[in-house]
Amino acid sequence: MKKSPNDSLVIKSELVLPNDTNTLNNLMGGRLMYLMDIVSAISAQRHSGTTVVTASVDNVSFTHPITIGSVVTLTSKVTRSFNSSMEVHIEVFAENIPKGKERIKTNEAFFTFVAVDAENKTVKVPELVPETTEEKALFESALKRRELRLVLAGRMKPEEAESLKTLFGK
Amino acid sequence: MKKSPNDSLVIKSELVLPNDTNTLNNLMGGRLMYLMDIVSAISAQRHSGTTVVTASVDNVSFTHPITIGSVVTLTSKVTRSFNSSMEVHIEVFAENIPKGKERIKTNEAFFTFVAVDAENKTVKVPELVPETTEEKALFESALKRRELRLVLAGRMKPEEAESLKTLFGK
Amino acid sequence: MKKSPNDSLVIKSELVLPNDTNTLNNLMGGRLMYLMDIVSAISAQRHSGTTVVTASVDNVSFTHPITIGSVVTLTSKVTRSFNSSMEVHIEVFAENIPKGKERIKTNEAFFTFVAVDAENKTVKVPELVPETTEEKALFESALKRRELRLVLAGRMKPEEAESLKTLFGK
Amino acid sequence: MKKSPNDSLVIKSELVLPNDTNTLNNLMGGRLMYLMDIVSAISAQRHSGTTVVTASVDNVSFTHPITIGSVVTLTSKVTRSFNSSMEVHIEVFAENIPKGKERIKTNEAFFTFVAVDAENKTVKVPELVPETTEEKALFESALKRRELRLVLAGRMKPEEAESLKTLFGK
Amino acid sequence: MKKSPNDSLVIKSELVLPNDTNTLNNLMGGRLMYLMDIVSAISAQRHSGTTVVTASVDNVSFTHPITIGSVVTLTSKVTRSFNSSMEVHIEVFAENIPKGKERIKTNEAFFTFVAVDAENKTVKVPELVPETTEEKALFESALKRRELRLVLAGRMKPEEAESLKTLFGK
Amino acid sequence: MKKSPNDSLVIKSELVLPNDTNTLNNLMGGRLMYLMDIVSAISAQRHSGTTVVTASVDNVSFTHPITIGSVVTLTSKVTRSFNSSMEVHIEVFAENIPKGKERIKTNEAFFTFVAVDAENKTVKVPELVPETTEEKALFESALKRRELRLVLAGRMKPEEAESLKTLFGK
Repeated sequence: MKKSPNDSLVIKSELVLPNDTNTLNNLMGGRLMYLMDIVSAISAQRHSGTTVVTASVDNVSFTHPITIGSVVTLTSKVTRSFNSSMEVHIEVFAENIPKGKERIKTNEAFFTFVAVDAENKTVKVPELVPETTEEKALFESALKRRELRLVLAGRMKPEEAESLKTLFGK
Repeated sequence: MKKSPNDSLVIKSELVLPNDTNTLNNLMGGRLMYLMDIVSAISAQRHSGTTVVTASVDNVSFTHPITIGSVVTLTSKVTRSFNSSMEVHIEVFAENIPKGKERIKTNEAFFTFVAVDAENKTVKVPELVPETTEEKALFESALKRRELRLVLAGRMKPEEAESLKTLFGK
Repeated sequence: MKKSPNDSLVIKSELVLPNDTNTLNNLMGGRLMYLMDIVSAISAQRHSGTTVVTASVDNVSFTHPITIGSVVTLTSKVTRSFNSSMEVHIEVFAENIPKGKERIKTNEAFFTFVAVDAENKTVKVPELVPETTEEKALFESALKRRELRLVLAGRMKPEEAESLKTLFGK
Repeated sequence: MKKSPNDSLVIKSELVLPNDTNTLNNLMGGRLMYLMDIVSAISAQRHSGTTVVTASVDNVSFTHPITIGSVVTLTSKVTRSFNSSMEVHIEVFAENIPKGKERIKTNEAFFTFVAVDAENKTVKVPELVPETTEEKALFESALKRRELRLVLAGRMKPEEAESLKTLFGK
Repeated sequence: MKKSPNDSLVIKSELVLPNDTNTLNNLMGGRLMYLMDIVSAISAQRHSGTTVVTASVDNVSFTHPITIGSVVTLTSKVTRSFNSSMEVHIEVFAENIPKGKERIKTNEAFFTFVAVDAENKTVKVPELVPETTEEKALFESALKRRELRLVLAGRMKPEEAESLKTLFGK
Repeated sequence: MKKSPNDSLVIKSELVLPNDTNTLNNLMGGRLMYLMDIVSAISAQRHSGTTVVTASVDNVSFTHPITIGSVVTLTSKVTRSFNSSMEVHIEVFAENIPKGKERIKTNEAFFTFVAVDAENKTVKVPELVPETTEEKALFESALKRRELRLVLAGRMKPEEAESLKTLFGK
């Protein structure tokens, strides 16, 4: 069985409330990562049809402050599946309508999930078949990100990371 | 003015409550990242003496499930400061005392913060001077992690990342 | 200025967590109404471009229990605007993926909002122009629901409610 | 066995905290409906002596803004029981003591609950016998509201709704 | 101006939800004290007509476990006022209706509040005039509790605590 | 088996967020007691190696307002064990770094816990052996606090409270 990225599309809009913000009245990074985890976990459930557990989070950067009273919208889709794991791409958009601030893209992130059964044993997941040009690009680059994850987790030697070599090497 | 890593040591113990857990009754990754953000932000405040905002989170992996009713303890320290930014190292330990599960280290992570004033303008932070062998090693490797962050954020060309070259290149 | 219902489309997926549930482990009605209010307020903000306040909620019924661990997805769109108020239609869908329960529609509701400025004074909102057959039907029936709201709030005499007469009278 | 409305009287006072409010610092409608659901569910439990589930909410309107720091007090009582369901009347009062704003009635609502056993099967509930003039009036008008609920839920034809006819018809 | 204890009566019923409970599924002591603080603060606001801040909590004991799904009802009343402070008596009752556990009194506590203005300066509060026998007994014994508080806070020498001497001395 | 106070040392740092504060933007007493209960329960778990339930809280006073945006740090240690119960000493420190307010001690408290097994039956706990001068003083004075608790709970006659007599009597 095969699935497309759209089969796992999840959208989540939230209002930024006082307790979500730091002393500058901007959304806290940790709260945004909590929301990213929820939305991408649902995408991974949609793709696998099973319970999923968060395996890793790739580097996330926070460059645009999101003010209290903003609407923050997260969208997520599976980009590629491996045996029992899935990479999910999340994009975050923010707008502050009463303040007249237009919607901009503020963040993106990649979360990886493992599909498990009720006893927490890993299970195989469907193959992902990308359709659009953007989905194909994310599908291709998923290998590079996976190698980087394995190297950073100490589970692959840097010299075995073939696609990273072409990136950082000579 | 200079500061040592111990000046920014923060410790935070928490009980894992029902709403922190997924359907397998294990702590959700997003909730743990929320806690990491709080504890490391306090470390960065201690080092800078200012308000701080989360700038980025490095790759985090989740390999040990933490069960409901566990005590999770996070410790964090600044590892190195740059002009107005600071890297913070977080370690996470979990134990489930009523179940007789001994304390183990379950995760570690690096968060980066920027020091700002009340108008959200960046301000200079004190130099960090590492003291122990472990602190010195983290201080040294901070450069490599910083280059990786800049490359991943598209703000440095891979071929300019000198310390990464020695890691991934030939 | 005119807007279509799609300009105000909002989607929000949520995981049903333990604290959202009653003693039968099903989503509490009050928690679902809280989510409905957030999602429809964002739709009304999108349509009006202003701050909005909840003016009323039409009769909502709860016929399908939504179990803990389900994904609940709310979608909302403005159906019709009046001077400074807007009616928003909300649909709720639930699925429990790990339990193999397929997505079904569980609820629908109509919330009404008033557009206000920073001093809480009402402001005019754009005209809504329905596009699809379904949107046109909701646009038409909005008058009937508005009359019912006014009668129930004691602000219109039953005998003046023209469209309701045709419904209940002879 | 018979019960009076006072047997199911429930009172709940709350402080309006920052996260309960919208960007105008007024209590959000959705948060108030969450509180209404809790208080009326307890009334229905008191009347039935069983677990209860929310079956429906009648039209609620929000005409008085309730400011941050206010005390909001909800009172609820069963107005009439049917086979296994109960209608509960909720009144909401608000006052802002430090600001010198006196207590006023801000909202009222009718919630309907169904009594169930541990397997979620409906169970019969005691008859309600109203005592005061006001309780008797609510007991009488409960039939009209019930017909309206059934018509709006598509479970009764408008022309069969006898008491509504007298209201809206000629 | 004088007030009676009933002028400050506050009642608050709550459902015990999963996140309120410990690993034995009983209400946590800390959560109950949080609820006690809210309810007694409202009583003190009612008596003083001002903002109030918690000054102290007397010894509280927890002897009856309150199970998840219970209804917990707190009632509070001012027992005596001093210059700018007020002692509030709180009683806690619990019942688990679906489990057939009847309402019992589980706890009682005394909280003390200070009345302040918007600049956090203390302000005088009305005299409290007890009416019932029980209110008069609490009014009398308030002196003894106040002395004990002052001794425990190191603000009165034990030998000056006249009413305690008769209690503990020879 | 014997344990030292350091075996049960727990530290917990928190940011004071908007929902933790009253209308003066200071940390609510009830929220602080909730945090005290969590941290001291973990200390008691560490000492006993079992599930614990809160048995009582001694008089707590609140003399220093803790402002929004502060860091509040709680530390706790078991001071003495009795058959199946343990007294825990909690100290609270607050600092507001962006505002330049230095760390001060704001509160201290004693909570008592009972060690229980999975059926909620009490179990014996290890003996506590104090080490430092301060720990020995707390160990000694624990008897006095215990007698006061028993007298206040009506479980010991004042005239049998030997150590209190020397405190309050002639």
